[in-house]
Amino acid sequence: MDFNTILKEIQDEIQKYFTKGKLPNYIPMLAQADENDFAMSLVTLDGEEYHTGCSNKKFSIQSISKVFTFTLALEHYSKELYKRVGHEPSGNPFNSLVQLEYESGIPRNPFINAGAIVTTDCLSSIYENNVFSKILDFIKKVSNDQDITFDEDIFISELGHGFKNFALINMMKSYHNIKNPIDDVIQTYFKQCSIMMNTKQLAHAMLFLANHGKDPFSKEPIISESKAKRINSLMLTCGHYDASGDFAYKVGLPGKSGVGGGIVAVVPKKMAICVYSPKLNFHGNSLIGTKALELFTTKTGLSIF
Amino acid sequence: MDFNTILKEIQDEIQKYFTKGKLPNYIPMLAQADENDFAMSLVTLDGEEYHTGCSNKKFSIQSISKVFTFTLALEHYSKELYKRVGHEPSGNPFNSLVQLEYESGIPRNPFINAGAIVTTDCLSSIYENNVFSKILDFIKKVSNDQDITFDEDIFISELGHGFKNFALINMMKSYHNIKNPIDDVIQTYFKQCSIMMNTKQLAHAMLFLANHGKDPFSKEPIISESKAKRINSLMLTCGHYDASGDFAYKVGLPGKSGVGGGIVAVVPKKMAICVYSPKLNFHGNSLIGTKALELFTTKTGLSIF
Amino acid sequence: MDFNTILKEIQDEIQKYFTKGKLPNYIPMLAQADENDFAMSLVTLDGEEYHTGCSNKKFSIQSISKVFTFTLALEHYSKELYKRVGHEPSGNPFNSLVQLEYESGIPRNPFINAGAIVTTDCLSSIYENNVFSKILDFIKKVSNDQDITFDEDIFISELGHGFKNFALINMMKSYHNIKNPIDDVIQTYFKQCSIMMNTKQLAHAMLFLANHGKDPFSKEPIISESKAKRINSLMLTCGHYDASGDFAYKVGLPGKSGVGGGIVAVVPKKMAICVYSPKLNFHGNSLIGTKALELFTTKTGLSIF
Amino acid sequence: MDFNTILKEIQDEIQKYFTKGKLPNYIPMLAQADENDFAMSLVTLDGEEYHTGCSNKKFSIQSISKVFTFTLALEHYSKELYKRVGHEPSGNPFNSLVQLEYESGIPRNPFINAGAIVTTDCLSSIYENNVFSKILDFIKKVSNDQDITFDEDIFISELGHGFKNFALINMMKSYHNIKNPIDDVIQTYFKQCSIMMNTKQLAHAMLFLANHGKDPFSKEPIISESKAKRINSLMLTCGHYDASGDFAYKVGLPGKSGVGGGIVAVVPKKMAICVYSPKLNFHGNSLIGTKALELFTTKTGLSIF
Repeated sequence: MDFNTILKEIQDEIQKYFTKGKLPNYIPMLAQADENDFAMSLVTLDGEEYHTGCSNKKFSIQSISKVFTFTLALEHYSKELYKRVGHEPSGNPFNSLVQLEYESGIPRNPFINAGAIVTTDCLSSIYENNVFSKILDFIKKVSNDQDITFDEDIFISELGHGFKNFALINMMKSYHNIKNPIDDVIQTYFKQCSIMMNTKQLAHAMLFLANHGKDPFSKEPIISESKAKRINSLMLTCGHYDASGDFAYKVGLPGKSGVGGGIVAVVPKKMAICVYSPKLNFHGNSLIGTKALELFTTKTGLSIF
Repeated sequence: MDFNTILKEIQDEIQKYFTKGKLPNYIPMLAQADENDFAMSLVTLDGEEYHTGCSNKKFSIQSISKVFTFTLALEHYSKELYKRVGHEPSGNPFNSLVQLEYESGIPRNPFINAGAIVTTDCLSSIYENNVFSKILDFIKKVSNDQDITFDEDIFISELGHGFKNFALINMMKSYHNIKNPIDDVIQTYFKQCSIMMNTKQLAHAMLFLANHGKDPFSKEPIISESKAKRINSLMLTCGHYDASGDFAYKVGLPGKSGVGGGIVAVVPKKMAICVYSPKLNFHGNSLIGTKALELFTTKTGLSIF
Repeated sequence: MDFNTILKEIQDEIQKYFTKGKLPNYIPMLAQADENDFAMSLVTLDGEEYHTGCSNKKFSIQSISKVFTFTLALEHYSKELYKRVGHEPSGNPFNSLVQLEYESGIPRNPFINAGAIVTTDCLSSIYENNVFSKILDFIKKVSNDQDITFDEDIFISELGHGFKNFALINMMKSYHNIKNPIDDVIQTYFKQCSIMMNTKQLAHAMLFLANHGKDPFSKEPIISESKAKRINSLMLTCGHYDASGDFAYKVGLPGKSGVGGGIVAVVPKKMAICVYSPKLNFHGNSLIGTKALELFTTKTGLSIF
Repeated sequence: MDFNTILKEIQDEIQKYFTKGKLPNYIPMLAQADENDFAMSLVTLDGEEYHTGCSNKKFSIQSISKVFTFTLALEHYSKELYKRVGHEPSGNPFNSLVQLEYESGIPRNPFINAGAIVTTDCLSSIYENNVFSKILDFIKKVSNDQDITFDEDIFISELGHGFKNFALINMMKSYHNIKNPIDDVIQTYFKQCSIMMNTKQLAHAMLFLANHGKDPFSKEPIISESKAKRINSLMLTCGHYDASGDFAYKVGLPGKSGVGGGIVAVVPKKMAICVYSPKLNFHGNSLIGTKALELFTTKTGLSIF
């Protein structure tokens, strides 16, 4: 397949959607993104790369960080993690307290905010004061890029406006599902959300999930094959909040979106993809990013189904 | 009626219930109460008083404070208060986040925790840094007793274990239904819960609600007649969390309980009552206190129905 | 008090509300009522009567029938009834299946549809094939009027449109909280809703609840004093669906409304009241009826608080 | 791969699980199944077949029928179907009324009971009185087997005990999401659940979903390629009620289970699988069937992830 042509077609066909969607307004810093930005990167297991748009422009990875922290925690801590976070779709918006209360503080899966906060709490128990630098190191390793850091302003902005996340963590603490001090865990969580990456880096960083858990170039195992498959299945069933079914239905690839406008997707045994466009649809996922991935699987037939 | 005899009979008949119920365990300080304590005080509008048990022993008033703060806020701030807190029974346990989320951060009534926190936030907007001393002054005034203060240890204990309340306030903040800094409001809230009073003081303090809003001795108006009636109706329909219907059904008086073991009740145009016994029933209300009030209305026929 | 003058004032003051509210549209027959109808009747324990408006015009009593069936069932069957129906406010719209499902088929109280259907099922177990005529006989007795019957057309209309009630009864059957055949119970239920009475008859029929359970004229006991008080308390906390708190707050009397436009209210030890006006407010209660009762307690001070 | 050996290994390894699980007890007829039954069939796109256990024994397909009716309805009626049924996982048990009520009568997806009932209603609008024979014809065609019928006794048993389904359909009717008479639709629905098939027939019947919508032998298109992919994605995200995430996590194949003990699964571009064993796990899916499929993907690496 000629991926350069396909990317060009996609870029043409998405133009008409730039009038749609909305920048997120609950974190002031995110509302300042450039509405016309678009980037898409494909990286294959053979090392071929295809990029279009502003693929060098960094944006905050937000919830895409959940894939990295869950991978790291699953490697070290899977038994406890399985008790403290479920793996079922949530059927409710991403920061819902309702389900959490009915289910006594056990989040439905690691890709909703509550589940990612518990995951970060697990990592805090292992790495203590070094937890954030360990998370960042892991992301640098899987990206094969040392030039990754977090944005202090976005971090501060999230910390000052993340009331729902404070509500979630306090709620889980009341059910004894948070073991470390609330302020430490939530700061680590907001820092990981504020990590800045571009579509090139993110597509690279997801390759191990397309390659049964191994770095395709160094051959180093990042996570076991069976765990890599499970992370993919979780991305498929739970990666897009209350629109996960829709994403699976229309795109047909494991993926994870962030409110920063990025979406990563994995084509098992073939490649990893990242798209970026900051305006969000009703469900809080990049509107044009979702559209672009839908066009991609339609044009290539590379859906897993 | 011979209230001395009635109190004596009640004290006899409740003895068999001392084996039942449980001290609350979510706030360590409250778990240290003396399980055998019991007190009951009646004060009539004519100034007659009847007491039995440890009616001089102070305990933390906890949620009974909600009646005082709501009265104070209603006097100054009723229009805004009606928009920010409902007046329907909650049909759910007292610290439920579920209903709050479905109803976009508007608590169902001022006598569940969320509603009382919004009430305290309203008072914080009026009194700013003096808010707690103003609340305490108000309670001293209606009790006609200057010797009332809060317990620092209980306050600290609540602050360190009140994760559900932190969850509630953060949730409401995310819906813009909290206007002042979270830490200030929650501290004032926990302080008001930690105020120490005995059954004598509390029975006195409720008299204005039995007397159409006026202090029966000084004749000073505390609140308008129509507002006094509305507070009574709220105590009847919402004063005992998820057991409000049961209390209305069995006792038939407006009342408000606190997890510290106290319950106040109002006999309109006649008297105010306070009972104290620290072990709680399944719904978080004083088990023996509820029983004693049930016996009281059965023996005297003084239910409002 | 001069009740004639008070009724006249009320009739004047409600005129401005006739433009508001809506006829119910989910049962076609009810949508045909005359929007301008208004009636109000007071009957005291001494036998004095005061009427205004179309107090001889019959309308379908709808949910007011729940008070009669609950009284009848409570007299014969209280122990089982307490296990199968709760007595807490529902905190949800009147035909909500949600709470019923969370609470395993046990309705919150006898004054929401599900609870009234269980009540009718209890009566069906006692009276078998005669159940509806026994209900009607009871209403004739408390009304002291033999000229009461149900409207066949309204009954048929409800039967053909009552899908939510069919959903409720099937749901409860699945939890084994319905003992008799579904079709029999639901028909009896819809028949009792279709009983036609005017405000005179209904005010008379409620007198025993103002008189500690006894017919004030024949002195015959209808129900025990303590049960009469409990029915009053249930009407106060649960008589108006999700607006029960509001009714208690603004009117301050035990009452029960029906979507046919009627509302009954009880002033303990003094009188019973019935108002009628067919347009409903947002919560499904007569808009002008609620207003009229609010004016009544404001003018007379006869709230129980 | 040597599928005969793999099936043999699976049959050995599942033996230890026969003590676990439970026969369903809410439909008496299903409780009479033979607890020790087990069968597994694989059919590849090339026409190779592998069977083990009682693969000729027929059982009622129950919810597996939802895949057939949804396929049939999607072919003829997709635009309306998309409005009346969602495609998100439900996050709640399979017959939950709660979500249905919160979402105004629109079921979350076609593979929960409510969604399948709406699907059957759509088919009733197209085929009117012939609807059940059209459904049966479609199943005969995709199975390439004329010898398929429904079991009258199971049908009658379901009709007499399906109160939750009656509740669901009445609820949806109240929201105008059922267009045909309730009794007709529910009878068709229970009949389709009572269709009897063995694992051989069911594996055959699913082949078109492994083959982009075409019958692999006759080459006849059953449904378009994009719709076939969407059905697979729906089976993956919603095929196992509240355990869909778990099935995706552990098995990693699109699949659909029925309370009759059958589970079908699709390996895109390769084969279709059916397992049967009547004892169910906590979530209402065949316990040994789920285990067998988990062993299958572990041994073969044929997960889609």
